[in-house]
Amino acid sequence: MKKEVIKFHELPVPGKISTKLTKNIKNKKELSLAYTPGVGYIASKIYKNEEYIYRYTNKGNLVAVISNGTAVLGLGNIGPSASKPVMEGKCALFKKFSKIDSYDIEIEESRPKELIKIISSLEKTFGGINLEDIKSPECFYIEKECNKRMNIPVFHDDQHGTAVVVAAALINSLKIAKKDIGNIKTVVLGAGAAATACLKLLLKLGLDKRNTYIYDIKGLITKRRNIENKTIRQFLKKDNISIKEALIDCDFCLGLSVGGILKKELIVNMSKKAIVFALANPTPEILPEDIKDIRKDIIIATGRSDYPNQVNNVLCFPYIFRAALDSRVRNISNYMKIETVKSISKLGTTDKEFGENKILPDIFDNRLLEYLPYKIMKRILKREENRIDIKIREYKQFLRKLNRDD
Amino acid sequence: MKKEVIKFHELPVPGKISTKLTKNIKNKKELSLAYTPGVGYIASKIYKNEEYIYRYTNKGNLVAVISNGTAVLGLGNIGPSASKPVMEGKCALFKKFSKIDSYDIEIEESRPKELIKIISSLEKTFGGINLEDIKSPECFYIEKECNKRMNIPVFHDDQHGTAVVVAAALINSLKIAKKDIGNIKTVVLGAGAAATACLKLLLKLGLDKRNTYIYDIKGLITKRRNIENKTIRQFLKKDNISIKEALIDCDFCLGLSVGGILKKELIVNMSKKAIVFALANPTPEILPEDIKDIRKDIIIATGRSDYPNQVNNVLCFPYIFRAALDSRVRNISNYMKIETVKSISKLGTTDKEFGENKILPDIFDNRLLEYLPYKIMKRILKREENRIDIKIREYKQFLRKLNRDD
Repeated sequence: MKKEVIKFHELPVPGKISTKLTKNIKNKKELSLAYTPGVGYIASKIYKNEEYIYRYTNKGNLVAVISNGTAVLGLGNIGPSASKPVMEGKCALFKKFSKIDSYDIEIEESRPKELIKIISSLEKTFGGINLEDIKSPECFYIEKECNKRMNIPVFHDDQHGTAVVVAAALINSLKIAKKDIGNIKTVVLGAGAAATACLKLLLKLGLDKRNTYIYDIKGLITKRRNIENKTIRQFLKKDNISIKEALIDCDFCLGLSVGGILKKELIVNMSKKAIVFALANPTPEILPEDIKDIRKDIIIATGRSDYPNQVNNVLCFPYIFRAALDSRVRNISNYMKIETVKSISKLGTTDKEFGENKILPDIFDNRLLEYLPYKIMKRILKREENRIDIKIREYKQFLRKLNRDD
Repeated sequence: MKKEVIKFHELPVPGKISTKLTKNIKNKKELSLAYTPGVGYIASKIYKNEEYIYRYTNKGNLVAVISNGTAVLGLGNIGPSASKPVMEGKCALFKKFSKIDSYDIEIEESRPKELIKIISSLEKTFGGINLEDIKSPECFYIEKECNKRMNIPVFHDDQHGTAVVVAAALINSLKIAKKDIGNIKTVVLGAGAAATACLKLLLKLGLDKRNTYIYDIKGLITKRRNIENKTIRQFLKKDNISIKEALIDCDFCLGLSVGGILKKELIVNMSKKAIVFALANPTPEILPEDIKDIRKDIIIATGRSDYPNQVNNVLCFPYIFRAALDSRVRNISNYMKIETVKSISKLGTTDKEFGENKILPDIFDNRLLEYLPYKIMKRILKREENRIDIKIREYKQFLRKLNRDD
């Protein structure tokens, strides 16, 4: 595997993305259109009316994938240089799955206020900002401030992308288990950025906070603890109980913590047709084979591509950004996330193989690009939050055409 | 022309560049190499040894084309949005002429210190920085500080690119006129960033400062004036004389000012086989036909593509950056600029049509990519300033191969 990864990244050229001309510049005539003197006319037009930037530059299809390298994958604060191959990978996925152009931008700055200034200064260049692998709790403040200051959507994928896909996976698992989200008992392992975003979204989808137990590295989140995170504070319990106790008759265990912490004896007393999402990467909280060893009825998902039911953000971010760019909304709002959850879930259930070993659509399912942005756009148009005139039928055709191009 | 420019920029997709995958991501296996879990291994390797960033990411072939829009073309301070089509055009030229990938980055920040902080924070992302259309005199300080702080070359093309091509054009014109740079009388119109850089470079090539008269908007640069620019200060004259007087028996008039300010009666008394570079854009200081009207012997160049002898930076920046990236030098030094001057000049003289109507190589001359970076690299290797091991023969083959790819 290591050798293959190295070869993949090194040859025939280093990295995973390059730039490409979308226009011909093969003679002096074309050069004079692309650059001086012709481009001066375009610059003047944009100066007079800034909206023209969408019509004559790549801005409208361009996302910045930005990190400062403070929380890269499971590797922690390894800095902007080491985050570059990851951000470049993200850019490759944007292009691959939704034909969005994106520049990887690794910023050497860990102070939140300074980082916010830098990101905000890039507003004119891009149509949207995908924040990535920025450490918690700073990431909350950074995303919020950037969204406030900038006229284009800013989306921290580690939070919201994860939340959307987890929610879709949960909804489909509950369908299989024939349970209702309002009635389930939940245990969450981890209280970081991803857990916070998941809980926020699941609350909106009907999760019962009284029946949800959150554990972080210090144990259960109780009233005696000094918890600042507002989302997490909603789940404070009165008395401390162990994870083992909490997992008795538990219907849903969401792991967003560290590898290996869930032992067989902890999950053995979960309810019938319980759901375990062990999303620590690369080593899950508990391996699927260990669960199956003792409880064949449990529905399992991980973050890994080598097991069934991979919870992978790539089911969300290419498509939610596609609709956001195409509608020019200022923010990626909750209703857009919820629509994405529903649409992913829907596509999953219409799959022939839908069942406990296939709760989500395939990542390479080419219905995604035609269905998800279409559904999200429909919601945006209903809300009238689009900043450009769009007809939903034409948008469907546009997506179909995009899907065919390669 | 306007209609064509608009169509060129708008269709079939807005803008001039997009991104492109350089690797296949067509199945789960390839996805796991490009992104998690595979990319984690690459991130760890770079974390342990930062040099690997060149081997496994696009950094080594990636330039940022950065502007804050404070001095765009001849249009002035029109801001970052209006500068975007120009920067995108520059990126297109990088790709077209030397196969360098580049991201256009328009930054909303006109305060030099803040801008320097922002640019410096991007060091890890890029292999080099091309500053563009930043107003004078701030541009001098911004370039200097960025170069000091950053481990990658920072090059303000409006200064140095222009200087290199002007110098090459002058050398070849002097060859045709059979004059020596040390003996000519020179008049320069304009004392901004481009003029400063040209004068600096021409001094190194032997220009006589006592015999060089510089005019800005207030008139001749004399000792009575309060001039802060150190380069320009070297040319202070004791007594004021008019442009008309200065142009009597003048051999070289370099216009880097505004359109239309040179009247026929001013240039009529220039020396035999005088040289006039009227580089104001889009309207030159004097039109070639107006010169030819009264003096058929004068050698003329402009910044325009619709006259012979276009002085165009695209003869320089793609190639000097090619050699800079490939050698990983920390700065683009004077000796590299001088080598570029000589190589452009040489290619020009070996042209069959070399003469007063063809003083420079054609912009689309495909010898440029094989010859210029090769010659510059040779000089870098002699100085031992390369930070990567290169064999000059192999580099030649590499350039040849690049030239064939498309």
